[in-house]
Order: sequence, then C-alpha cells, then structure tokens
Amino acid sequence: MTFEPVDAAVVPRFAGIPSFMRLPVLTDPALVDVALVGVPFDGGTTNRPGARHGPREIRNQSSLMRRINANGICPYEHLRVADLGDAPVNPIDLLDSLSKIEAFFAALRRAGAIPIAAGGDHLITLPILRALATSPVGLVHFDSHSDTNDRYFGENLYTHGTPFRRAVEEGLLDPKRCVQIAIRGSYYQHTDFDFARAAGFRIFTMDEVMDHGIAEIMGETSAIIGDAPTYVSFDIDSLDPAYAPGTGTPEIGGLTAREAQRMLRALTGKNIIGADVVEVAPPFDPSGLTALTGATMMFELLCAIAGGRR
Amino acid sequence: MTFEPVDAAVVPRFAGIPSFMRLPVLTDPALVDVALVGVPFDGGTTNRPGARHGPREIRNQSSLMRRINANGICPYEHLRVADLGDAPVNPIDLLDSLSKIEAFFAALRRAGAIPIAAGGDHLITLPILRALATSPVGLVHFDSHSDTNDRYFGENLYTHGTPFRRAVEEGLLDPKRCVQIAIRGSYYQHTDFDFARAAGFRIFTMDEVMDHGIAEIMGETSAIIGDAPTYVSFDIDSLDPAYAPGTGTPEIGGLTAREAQRMLRALTGKNIIGADVVEVAPPFDPSGLTALTGATMMFELLCAIAGGRR
Amino acid sequence: MTFEPVDAAVVPRFAGIPSFMRLPVLTDPALVDVALVGVPFDGGTTNRPGARHGPREIRNQSSLMRRINANGICPYEHLRVADLGDAPVNPIDLLDSLSKIEAFFAALRRAGAIPIAAGGDHLITLPILRALATSPVGLVHFDSHSDTNDRYFGENLYTHGTPFRRAVEEGLLDPKRCVQIAIRGSYYQHTDFDFARAAGFRIFTMDEVMDHGIAEIMGETSAIIGDAPTYVSFDIDSLDPAYAPGTGTPEIGGLTAREAQRMLRALTGKNIIGADVVEVAPPFDPSGLTALTGATMMFELLCAIAGGRR
Amino acid sequence: MTFEPVDAAVVPRFAGIPSFMRLPVLTDPALVDVALVGVPFDGGTTNRPGARHGPREIRNQSSLMRRINANGICPYEHLRVADLGDAPVNPIDLLDSLSKIEAFFAALRRAGAIPIAAGGDHLITLPILRALATSPVGLVHFDSHSDTNDRYFGENLYTHGTPFRRAVEEGLLDPKRCVQIAIRGSYYQHTDFDFARAAGFRIFTMDEVMDHGIAEIMGETSAIIGDAPTYVSFDIDSLDPAYAPGTGTPEIGGLTAREAQRMLRALTGKNIIGADVVEVAPPFDPSGLTALTGATMMFELLCAIAGGRR
Amino acid sequence: MTFEPVDAAVVPRFAGIPSFMRLPVLTDPALVDVALVGVPFDGGTTNRPGARHGPREIRNQSSLMRRINANGICPYEHLRVADLGDAPVNPIDLLDSLSKIEAFFAALRRAGAIPIAAGGDHLITLPILRALATSPVGLVHFDSHSDTNDRYFGENLYTHGTPFRRAVEEGLLDPKRCVQIAIRGSYYQHTDFDFARAAGFRIFTMDEVMDHGIAEIMGETSAIIGDAPTYVSFDIDSLDPAYAPGTGTPEIGGLTAREAQRMLRALTGKNIIGADVVEVAPPFDPSGLTALTGATMMFELLCAIAGGRR
Amino acid sequence: MTFEPVDAAVVPRFAGIPSFMRLPVLTDPALVDVALVGVPFDGGTTNRPGARHGPREIRNQSSLMRRINANGICPYEHLRVADLGDAPVNPIDLLDSLSKIEAFFAALRRAGAIPIAAGGDHLITLPILRALATSPVGLVHFDSHSDTNDRYFGENLYTHGTPFRRAVEEGLLDPKRCVQIAIRGSYYQHTDFDFARAAGFRIFTMDEVMDHGIAEIMGETSAIIGDAPTYVSFDIDSLDPAYAPGTGTPEIGGLTAREAQRMLRALTGKNIIGADVVEVAPPFDPSGLTALTGATMMFELLCAIAGGRR
Repeated sequence: MTFEPVDAAVVPRFAGIPSFMRLPVLTDPALVDVALVGVPFDGGTTNRPGARHGPREIRNQSSLMRRINANGICPYEHLRVADLGDAPVNPIDLLDSLSKIEAFFAALRRAGAIPIAAGGDHLITLPILRALATSPVGLVHFDSHSDTNDRYFGENLYTHGTPFRRAVEEGLLDPKRCVQIAIRGSYYQHTDFDFARAAGFRIFTMDEVMDHGIAEIMGETSAIIGDAPTYVSFDIDSLDPAYAPGTGTPEIGGLTAREAQRMLRALTGKNIIGADVVEVAPPFDPSGLTALTGATMMFELLCAIAGGRR
Repeated sequence: MTFEPVDAAVVPRFAGIPSFMRLPVLTDPALVDVALVGVPFDGGTTNRPGARHGPREIRNQSSLMRRINANGICPYEHLRVADLGDAPVNPIDLLDSLSKIEAFFAALRRAGAIPIAAGGDHLITLPILRALATSPVGLVHFDSHSDTNDRYFGENLYTHGTPFRRAVEEGLLDPKRCVQIAIRGSYYQHTDFDFARAAGFRIFTMDEVMDHGIAEIMGETSAIIGDAPTYVSFDIDSLDPAYAPGTGTPEIGGLTAREAQRMLRALTGKNIIGADVVEVAPPFDPSGLTALTGATMMFELLCAIAGGRR
Repeated sequence: MTFEPVDAAVVPRFAGIPSFMRLPVLTDPALVDVALVGVPFDGGTTNRPGARHGPREIRNQSSLMRRINANGICPYEHLRVADLGDAPVNPIDLLDSLSKIEAFFAALRRAGAIPIAAGGDHLITLPILRALATSPVGLVHFDSHSDTNDRYFGENLYTHGTPFRRAVEEGLLDPKRCVQIAIRGSYYQHTDFDFARAAGFRIFTMDEVMDHGIAEIMGETSAIIGDAPTYVSFDIDSLDPAYAPGTGTPEIGGLTAREAQRMLRALTGKNIIGADVVEVAPPFDPSGLTALTGATMMFELLCAIAGGRR
Repeated sequence: MTFEPVDAAVVPRFAGIPSFMRLPVLTDPALVDVALVGVPFDGGTTNRPGARHGPREIRNQSSLMRRINANGICPYEHLRVADLGDAPVNPIDLLDSLSKIEAFFAALRRAGAIPIAAGGDHLITLPILRALATSPVGLVHFDSHSDTNDRYFGENLYTHGTPFRRAVEEGLLDPKRCVQIAIRGSYYQHTDFDFARAAGFRIFTMDEVMDHGIAEIMGETSAIIGDAPTYVSFDIDSLDPAYAPGTGTPEIGGLTAREAQRMLRALTGKNIIGADVVEVAPPFDPSGLTALTGATMMFELLCAIAGGRR
Repeated sequence: MTFEPVDAAVVPRFAGIPSFMRLPVLTDPALVDVALVGVPFDGGTTNRPGARHGPREIRNQSSLMRRINANGICPYEHLRVADLGDAPVNPIDLLDSLSKIEAFFAALRRAGAIPIAAGGDHLITLPILRALATSPVGLVHFDSHSDTNDRYFGENLYTHGTPFRRAVEEGLLDPKRCVQIAIRGSYYQHTDFDFARAAGFRIFTMDEVMDHGIAEIMGETSAIIGDAPTYVSFDIDSLDPAYAPGTGTPEIGGLTAREAQRMLRALTGKNIIGADVVEVAPPFDPSGLTALTGATMMFELLCAIAGGRR
Repeated sequence: MTFEPVDAAVVPRFAGIPSFMRLPVLTDPALVDVALVGVPFDGGTTNRPGARHGPREIRNQSSLMRRINANGICPYEHLRVADLGDAPVNPIDLLDSLSKIEAFFAALRRAGAIPIAAGGDHLITLPILRALATSPVGLVHFDSHSDTNDRYFGENLYTHGTPFRRAVEEGLLDPKRCVQIAIRGSYYQHTDFDFARAAGFRIFTMDEVMDHGIAEIMGETSAIIGDAPTYVSFDIDSLDPAYAPGTGTPEIGGLTAREAQRMLRALTGKNIIGADVVEVAPPFDPSGLTALTGATMMFELLCAIAGGRR
C-alpha cells in the first residue's frame, strides 16, 4: 500500500483539509514507513514564542509541494507516507510535555515508522531522541546556534538552548558522529562551544561554509556520520532570516535556501532514523515564507530518506 | 450518536488538524444533522479575489469556538454535527464550479443534512439554493450589497453581484419572504434596488437599522419569513470593515459584531434549511479578525438551528 | 459637460490608472465644478510621518466608490468633477510647501472650482484656507485634536498642531462660526483649549457626542455655521482607530464610521467652499481600511456639496 | 517631589528611551505613589502566546499619552509616578515566575507604591493579588472570560484561565465585592460560571451591558465594591477585537474603546490598591492599535487613582 | 519626440498619478516605440489569486526607478516610451479575456510599439504571443515552472500552467529557439518536462544555474535565440521568494535579484519583440518588495531593448 | 570600569528597558569609550519617511545581540560602552536639527567617546562629521547611492542625498581616502557620479563587488584609508532589500547580510573615529528583519573598534 497526495488537478491546492503534503491523515503508525507529525510545543522558548503554531502553518504551506524533487525522487513511489497528526503536548507544563512527546515517538518507533517532525521549538528534539535512540546515534544538525548550553535561569535544564547537551549526557548521541552546520551569530562566553567540541562534535561555522562551499562541507559530514543510524535536525534559523524571518531567534548571515536544499539532498542514502524541522514561528512570519520553507525542507528530508530505498 | 469538538483541555487549541469547530471530519452526510462545509470558490469575484482561501482560515480560527453560546445553547447536545470537507470546485471554470457545488449540496439535502457553508464568494449561494430549494424558500440575507444585479461585462449572468436575481428568476426564492439587512454603500444607478423591491424583497438599509434598532428589525424579519423553510446568507461585509477588514468589497458604516450576533440569535427556532457565511478573504486580513468573525457567525448559526430542537 | 467614473462593468475596479473615484485626470480647473486633489505633504508632522503617501492610497481605494450615496445623491448628475492631480510640495522645506500649496488652491478658486483635498497632514488646511478665504469663513472641523496649539520646539509656528490658531490670527476664519467635533484624548495643559474657546469656537467633545447624539450635535452645528461660506476639514483621527488605524496620532474612543457618514450627510445643502480629508498614513495601515475610509469620506463630502445643487 | 513625562515639544515623542508615559525610570519604589511596571510573562497562556512582549510595546505606544484625561485630571499634579521597570520572570518555569512576581509586588506594597501593571497574560494577576491583598479585597474585572476555571490538562492549577478561582480559594478576594464585566463568548460547560456565581461574584455579561448601558452597570459596580480596598484588572479582550485584535483569545462582540474608557473613569475616587492591563500580544497586532489601547487604559487607571487625591 | 519620467527633484516620487516609471499616460500606440502596459488578469490562476492587482502596485513602486541602469543605458534617450494603460480584461470570463488581451496587443503591434507588460498571471503571455508572433518566435523564459502542462481539471486547456504548450501547439513559438531558466521546485510526474524537451526547449534548471554560473547560462542562451525575433517572459517566481514573496506559487531556492538583473542585461542588443513581468501578487506582499522587484525588472527589460538602439 | 549587557539568563531578552545591546543608559559621555546613540531624524528624506523611528526599533531588536562576535571579539572586555540616549532633534526644522545633532556629537568627541549612531536618515552623517572631523577624515561608506547630489527642489542643499558632497565642500573629508561600496540602482544623469569621482572617491559598484569578491574589495579599501582617522557610514540599503526591506529607498541587487558582516569585520583594527547605521525605516519593516540587521551591524562595528584595542 502506498499513499499519494491529493491530486491538485482534481482538488485545488487551497481546498480540503490541510494535512502535511495533502497526504491521508492516519492514526495507526504501523501502516506507514514514514510518519509526518507535528509537535506544537514551544515551552522551551526563552525569548519569542510562537513555534507552537508551526505545525499548522507548515501543513498549510505544504499544499504547495508536489510529488518529485529536483533529484528526481518521488518518495511516494518508495515509501508509505502519511500525516500522523500532532504529538500530545501540555502548553503549561514542560516536563509533562517532554514525557508525552517521548511516548508518542516511541510508539512510532515500535511500529517501524520513521518520523519527520514539524516543531515546535528545538527542545522537542530531546524527547524525540529519547524515543528513537535505543543506542547512541549520529546527528546532522543545521542551526545558527549550537544548543549545547547547560542551564538557564538558575537550575532549569530544559530549554530550546540545551537539547544537545542533555542528549549527550543521556547517552542518546554518539558525539564523534555529530555534526553542526551553519553555526554563527554572537555568543555569550568564550567557552560557549567548549562542551560540544570537547564531546567531539564537528562544528562547521558559517565562515567555514562560505570559505569551503557546501559540497566540501557535506562530503566531510558524510564521512563523519558514516552509515550508522543518524538523526537530522533542521532548525529553520540555520537559514538567513531573509529566507526565514518567522523564527524566534533569527541570526543574520546564514544559509540561503538553495544551499540548504542541496545540503539536505546530499544526505540521500544515509541511514536516517528520524528528522525534524523546528523553530518556525508563524506570528513573526507576515508573508508565510518561513512556513513554506519549513514545508519544503520536510519534503527534501522525505526525499533523502526515500532516495535510499530506490 | 453525537459528535463533540476536541477537548481543549486535552489537546490544545493550536494543535491537531483544524477542522470546523474541531469536530470530526466525515464524508458520509447521512451521519449528521448539520454539515459544516467549505466552498473554496471565488470565481465570481469581480474585484479583489481571495475568498477561495476562506474555508481554511475560518477552520483555523474556529478552534477558538467552545460549545455553548451566550443564549445557553449547546448545539452538540441537540444535533449531530461534523466537518464534511469542501465542495469540489474548479478554479478556472465558473459554470463547472456551479455544477459541482450544486451536486455536492444536493447530496447533503438528500441525506437529510442541513448545511452551513463557509465561502467562497457570494455566487456560491446560487448553486446551494439550487440544491436545497425544492420549492421556493424564504431568505434572510445580511449584506452591504443587494447582489441582485443583472449582467456584468456584457453577457455574464453569474457573478458574486447577481446570485439573488438569478435565484428569483429560477424560482428558488419566495420573494415575499425575502429580507435583506444592512444594505448600504454607494450604488451605481438609481434603479439598483428596483428589481429586489419589485420582486417583493424587504430591504433594511443601515440607516433603518440605526434608526430602529436591531430588535425591531428582527421582529419584522421574523414576521416576514414566518415558519416556512428559510435560508440564511451572511455576507461578512454586512459588518463594518473595522470588524471584518478582510473581504473583497468592504463598505464602511456597517453592523457591529455584537449587533450581528444578536440578529443571528434572533433567528433561533426559525425553519432554517441551510446557511452560509461568505466573502471572508484571508489575503486582506492581516490580523485574522475576519476569519475569527466568520467562524463565530457559523457557530451562532449552528446554535440558532440547534435552539429550535431543544 | 459632466464627468463620470469609469464603468466598473466595463473596466474592472482593479484596472486602469487609479484616479480619485476613477474620474478623468485633468489639469484645467475651469472645466470642473469640484476638483478632487491630493496634497502629499506631511512636513508638519511632529511624530509619525507617512501622510504624504495618503493621496496615492486614497486614490487606490476610491476605486471602490460607486455613483450614488445612501441619501440618493449622485454628484455626477449635478456637478462636473475630476481629479486635478496633486498640489506641488517640497518634502524638505515647510515654508516653500505652504506657498506652493496656497498657489495651487488659489488657482482652483479663481477658476471657480471647489476643492476637496486628500492630505497630507493637517497643516495643509492652512494654505488651503489662505487660498480660499477671501473673507473670514466658517469651519466644521472633525478631529480628536483642536489643532490650535501655538508653538512647537521653540519658535516653530507651523505644524499639524497649529493650523487653526494661525488661521484665526490671519483672519481666515470667523471664529463664531467655527465648530470642532469629536475632540478627545489626553491633553498637555489645562489651558489647551483656552485659545479656541476664547476665540469663540464651539467644541463638541466625544463625551458630548456620546451624551447628546449626532442628530443634536449636527443640528447645533448647522445653526452655528448658518448659510455663509464654510470650510469642512475631516481629520481621519476623528474616527476611533478601530475604524482608521493608519494615522499619525491615533486617539482611541472616537466616532464610528457610520456616525461620521451621517454627520457629513447632515451638511448637505450648506454653503461649502472647500473641504479636506487629512492624516491618512498608509505605512501604519496594514489592511488598507483607513485609506478606504478616507476615500468614502471624500465621496460623502462630494455628495454633500452636490446635494445643494439638486 | 513629582515626576513629569518628557515634554514632547522638547523631545519628540518618537525619541528617547520608551518608558511608560515617558516618565523617569526608577528602581526605588519609595520615591513614588504609583509605580508603572511591566510583567513580561505569558507562561500561563494555553493557546496563542506573545503577551510577554506586551510591556515593551505598551511602553512604546504610551509615548502618545499626554498629561490630562477627558475628565480634566492630571495625575502628575497629585501623584509621584514613575516607571519601575519589569518584574523578574522566568520564561520556562511557571511557579518560579509566580514567586518572583509576588516578591516584586510585595516590595512595592511595602514601599507604599500603588502598582499599575502591564502584562503579560492574566495569570500575573494572581501573584500580584498575593502580594497586595493582605486581607481580602474587592475586584473590578473587565474581561470576556471569567477566568475562574479549575484545572487544565489534568492537574495544572495555574493558567491564565484560573487566577480568580485560585484567588478566591486563597482568600485574596472578598467575593461579595467582586464584579466581572463584559463576559461573553462561547463557553465549555453549562457549569462554567457556577463557581464564580456561587462564590458571590456579580457577573455582567455583554448582553447586560448592551441592554442596561454603562452608566447603570458602573453604578451597580460602585455600590458593590463600596469604599473598601479594591483591585482593578483590565483584560484587553474585554474590548471587541475590532478595538484590540492583538490578544491571545479574542472574542467578538465586546466593549467599544469609548465605553471602556468611561467605565474606568467611573472608578475615580474608589479605593484602588492596584491595577493591571493584561493580554496585549504584539505578535498578533500588526497596526499597533492594541498596545495603544493598553497604554491608554493604563493612563485612565492612573487618572482614576489620581482623581481620588484631588 | 521622446518622453521622460517626471523629474523627482520637481515633483516628489510619492506625488502625482502613479504611471509606469512616472511616464506620460497615452492612448495612441503610434506615438511610442515601447509601450508599458498592464494586464490585470489572474483568471488562469489555479491556487492563490491576486496577480490582477499586480499592475497597480508595480506602477506604484516604479516611481523609485530613475533614468539610467547600471550599464549606463538611458532608454529615454533612444526610445519613445509611455504608459499605455491596461489591457481590457473580464474578471469572470477567461476566454473573453484572452480575446480582449490579444486584440489590445495586436493594436500595439500594428502601431509598431514593442510592449512590455506587467501581469497578471502567466496565462497572459499566450494572448500576447498570439498578437505578436506573426511567425514563430524565440523565447527567453525565466520561471521556476515550465508552464507546459496540458490540461487541468479535466478539459481546461487554459491556465497559468499551460501557456507555453499552447503556444507551441499554435505555432507561435520556434521551440528550437526557446530557453527556460531557473526551473526548479517539486513536480508532479516524471514526465512533466517531456513535452518541453521533446519540442526542443533548452531547460536550465536552478542546479545548472548554480553549477555553471549566470555568464555561461546566458552565453548559451544568446547562442540559442540568435538574432531572430524573440519574446522575453519573466515570471517573478523565478526569483527566490526571499526576493519576491508576493507571488501565487512561490518555490524556494531560486535566483537572487542581482543574478536576475545581470541575466536580463545580458539580453541587451537581442531582437526583442515584446516582454512581460508576471505573477506579482500584491495581497501576499506585505513589504512591497515583490512589486519593486517587478518594476525594476521592467526597467531592465526596457534598457535591454534600448541598448540595441544605441 | 566596564559595562556589560543585562544577562539574558537572569532577565529574559524581551524584558526590561530596551537600551542598545541591553547596556546601561548613561548621560555622561566621559564614562565611556564608545557611545551608542540614536539620531531619530528623517527630515532629509525626500520620499518615504520613517527612519525617525529607527533608533527605537533597533534598540528593541538589539536585545538579540550577545557579547562576542564570530571573530571572537568581546567588545565589553576592551571598551566601556553604554547607551547615551538620543541626540536632540527638531522634527519640523531641518537646520535646527543639524545644529542640535552636531552639538550633541561634539560633546561626545570632547569627552573622548567614539560614537556609533543609529539613524535616522543619511543626512545625519553630515552634522556628525562636522562634530568629529576636526581635520579631514577618511570614509568607508556602504550604500546603494553615492549621496553626493548637489541640490534638490531648487535651492535645498541639505537632504539625505547630499551629505557627502557637503562634507567634501566643507573640508570634513579627505576625498582621496574615501571609499563607497555597493553603489548600484538606476540613476538620474550620466554625470551623477562625476562629483565623487572628480573629488577622488573610490566607488565600488555592486558589479565590481560581484566580479571581484569582498576580500579583494576590502583589501583595496584598507589600503586606501590607511591608518589615519576614518569614519564608517553604513546605509542599510547597501544590502539587498531581501535582507533589509524596511528602508526608504530600497534598490534590489545589493549585498547579502553575510557579505556585509565580513566587510565590517575587515575593518577591525582600523582607526575608526565614529560610525553610523542609517535609513532603517520601521513602518516599512513588517517582520522586523531590517531593525535586527541594523542592530547586528552596530554590534559588528563595535567589535571592529574593540578589535583594535585587544
């Protein structure tokens, strides 16, 4: 059984219930190979909230996606894909939300469905990893920030600035197989990247991306992650805010959209166990461009996974 | 069997698939008493298009509706209500769209479901009436425009400015039981209202609304339509654009939202065979207020229908 | 000879060069009875500029006007009306602008054309009065502010807060025939209205409007201005900002659009020698509502003038 | 010692550090009679966040306030008033935030300063009451919602929908001296208002406001609260969203701005121990109108307090 | 006779009737070498309409254009250029619109005027080609989509996704001299480009643009089109939506503005018989950037044509 | 003594008084090495005003800045930096404003503080140079326009299009040490750049930037300005409007943000006596991106100055 997007030549793109990619809405993950899901949670956001509205607007804009990407990959020919709805969250209780999200993704894993999640803020990656990483996994992480801070406001361990430090501490990641790309922006202390680097992460700053080019960066990335299980986390603020203004912590000077698309396509055939696109914040996105970009990145991730099945 | 909105204390309002009122999405109209449906068609629009996007944004904002209105009516205690999806439309073929819409609503009628439609431009009311009016029906029509023009651009009979003239000509309406409320704005010819008045429509201009008050207007309306089958058509531009800026043909000087709510509540217990809320145009609605207002008017119409079943 | 708006059933409203009311663009004022003109000047603005863009957006939105107002007046049946373009202005020289504007309106007066101007900020009323008031005239002034301040930033006599004081000092106004309506908002000193009241202006605050109603206010206004020549100045901020958010100095708690329309209609038949609609600031008007309202008020003023010619 | 806003005829309104009303920024509450403060917390928000940005935008728009209100009250002639900055908050820890806010307001109370707070979501009223209500106080509460829900998402006691129930339970309010005004909108259960009514609150729904008028409502309110200490809480969503679209839970059909201003002025001379204006959410406020309205309501509250000192 | 833009040092850019490039508005095409015209039609749009408003906003933003481009070409020194108004269209009748548009452009051709059109959606190119291509012409087509689909919604032959297939079928284009540049985005079927490629079109995908650079692409383009008559069609969605968000079918990953400008300049001296800039949709363009970009591309096209006359 | 930004892990970024970089607000320039100041003046703007609101929104967005830039420079470790408030301006008197601004900056110079100013329009650079250039200085000027026009509207010498011509004439600049970067856009006359080139300015057009790359451009720039005192003026419209739409005179085809950041960093260690970031116009900046970019450029300038002190 395969699933197909609603045909835009029969039902116009603006019509119908706006599921991800206009795919069927299901509740049983055993029916799919890849589950597109929303995680409408921004309780880890320390400055500008709104990413909780990300899944809805990404779904809306995803109606613009068609079936085949620029590399000629049609994921629906190789994979059963559907919209599995939203993970349950509790907008006023962070720890309860983390539990609920983890349980939701654990059920996907047990059913054999690879999740591609639409956030939500970046803290959602932590419970997803808890659910998926039955042993330490590799990571390809696009972001302007390393998100390996320690604490915030005293003793708070869990914010959208800390997920990857927690993931290392909890043994969810294999740090030697972790890559961070497009890191930039001002930072707080000279020691801000010490944890990540000491752990073994390879950090590609925007300066390196500009100086070496995306082909070289992705070649080195491919070598680092190898063929073992790897998670891909795409923070929309890895892009320059000209391409994605609607996000909580924009940092100018980032990737262009076409660079990012090529970088995701370079992951085709890797052993991807799950992925997310996070930090799309519709209240700061007057033209809708950021949600459109988020939807496109989800489609590219889907094609990268499908490409390995051809 | 009854249906209930998703509980906002379990799934937050910003999460989940955005169906009308967060009700179940069904395809079989025989399962419901009232069908909430979208008609994403604006091919009859002569100036500012965009109402084709109305159903999606009204669905989005309808997540803010709860279960009981100010008159204490909970429609879900009296009626089986669900989201029946969107009527099929053809965005580049007006006549084909009219056929498709009529067929969709005829199926609802045959199944015994009362439709409440979210437009779309005002032309959609014509095929809905063709489907529902097995004999001439009464009409309560909120609008700044009479929409009883004849032709446009030469020989074009079908635009969002002509549906009620066509409906009279086709014998769908009983003109002596037709009421138009909130009519205002500049007009083209001294004869613009001649057709409607000659046919027997009672036109309440905004001047009359201001001078006589909504209680008196609705009392007279109730007497005119009586207890026979009646259709209710709510053009969002009946409201002052302060309350609904996102519409194709705004006319200042209209109803306030609270006046309009009371007017719809005054229809509780009437013999309503169907209703619509039209002309919500999201591209002109930067704050989302117009879609919220459209969703609320749909809820009030639902309560008015339900109130008669108590 | 009369002029007519372009027929919207032949050329759609969104097409064609956007002149005021879609009327012909002329340069010879001798051909018209009423001249619709723009004054794109906001050099007198002390806080939020942008009214210089008012004429263009009011012209754009005026495409929505038709031919006849709610009182049944079709101005084009009684008057020759056209768009006479914009008064010349100098965006970086206030005094030069005042001279240029005065000269432009003096030419209109000499040609026998009654001007209805779209501002621009409220300072433009001063040079218009200098051009038109060959002897002291009456004034009906809708505004949240009295605009009779004295100086600003030391010795600056000319800002959008001072035009009516200057006009009194220069003998352009007959203060006993001057009315100010909808005055409200916080003020600087207990003496802020002393000049206006001492001169003889009748000030109707919003509290009075709310307590006495518009019929009574306009009745008293009519008695005060009598049948002698009178100028009408409509500051868009007389309206509550819900109805007109796009303005430089919004004050909440103002007129509704339908109240304002009725008040302007109550001037039908008075001896109006000119009028303006000022302080529409498009950069602060995301939905376009304020420009639409400005266009409608210009149309109502045109009808009020035409109504006296029936 | 008194404090005065920066003179707009010396420093333009758009210049300078944007403190509340352009008053001095102080840190010692002992220097003032009334403290204007921000509480940038929206952690109690269950749907659309953003009110954490309210204090900044209200400060920005408050530059439009002058010195004297429509009743002729200049608060700066009677009271020492300043901007005391923002209460400390923790954006990812609700309970820690409640503690921090309470401590901040307790310090104000001990110093003898009456606070007028800019929220923030409505949950902030709870810690403020904990700080101020050394014995049970009266309440005048403008809102579309009663905010007396019990729990949310299972066991969560503290959200922006529950503060007044908690306040009753904690003995902070004298329920017989509590009034809620402008309540409307759909609700969840027939029992939603049972707690408030059983406790003794007087609820004025919007229907009552429309039917009886604001003078009668405020007369009864005055009688209920008497001369004993009373807190005033103004949720911006008490207003119709035409007047305040930028809020998290808009409900159409509410108060107009001019009604609300008159209602606050009617509290002049009452024994007000503190007040707040909450739920202004700038990300949903494209025109800035909501923040302007919030700033104006703070000014009216300040005048109401000052009026009792004349 | 030549025509010149209004001098911005005499009449400010925000003043005056907003014609294209502030040029004179004429009706007789015999007076000009190049006619700038609007085609306010979006009836071929299958998803997000609004391009009908393109001509007005492009005219508005074109006030920012000056006289000479970066290559030192002043078109007004070599060509008589004016604004010839808008082609007639029928917003509710697609076939009638195609006829009207064709007739309008045929009149331009007969008068010897080269048109540069502002759309409107991409379907307008078909009737323009019908009017201009007295024998098959070459094509330089910038777009993210090939627009060579066959049918839509069953039997509908004419949409904004089909013009170039129809043009080939009708013998309007010489397919061996047709180039499509910046093609990208997901597509429906593996066969989507078969028609274009089989016909002989040279398609430059964005991947090719990125890999080979614009100089090489334009060199090859120049060789393909040669010196025979060629039409240039610039779909604004060829640009990355960061540069042009206001369009109906945005596809991320496109050209930058500076790349596109250089590409158009590379056409200087070619035998251009007409050109268009299409798919600017103002309702989706909150900052106005897309209309500014459209106006600039029209100016570059004008310079490219003029450059051949030096 | 050093000053530090408020710690975002103690006070969230959205809280507190929004000073530049969340630094202390001081009034005594003798306490600092670098003074961050606003100049809220746009009286020299000939088209779209609004830059007067630039300082406030740049301050707001500067809360997103942290302490260390991509080159590892923490300015607060090397320099005492604070927010010195806004220069006094007179919004309706251009010459008075120039005097006031000059006096304000002269006081900074006498106190030994290097200013980094947030405009305001580009005319503000003239009085700043008058205050700082006790002998002719070098200039690095990023802009799409040369701003060396002569007169405007007849005899007006001072607009945002003329500051650098006036500065040369007044002997404030050493033209042989003046560089202009990113010049582009259409221009009025073939002679538009004659003055600048004759004086000895080196103009790098965008074409040169694209062809030679930023490293080469900045290398040549460094050689030209040498080690003598130099002023840096950054017009936000040097950037492509995709990166900075909110400006008065946008020109497509400009720098990317990451190019501009690298260019400013290349000035590290040069003898910078002052700098500005101008033409950020918030009313045209719906997403806030332009103000964020302006804030970041101020931070990069601060780091470039600090880098020389390491």
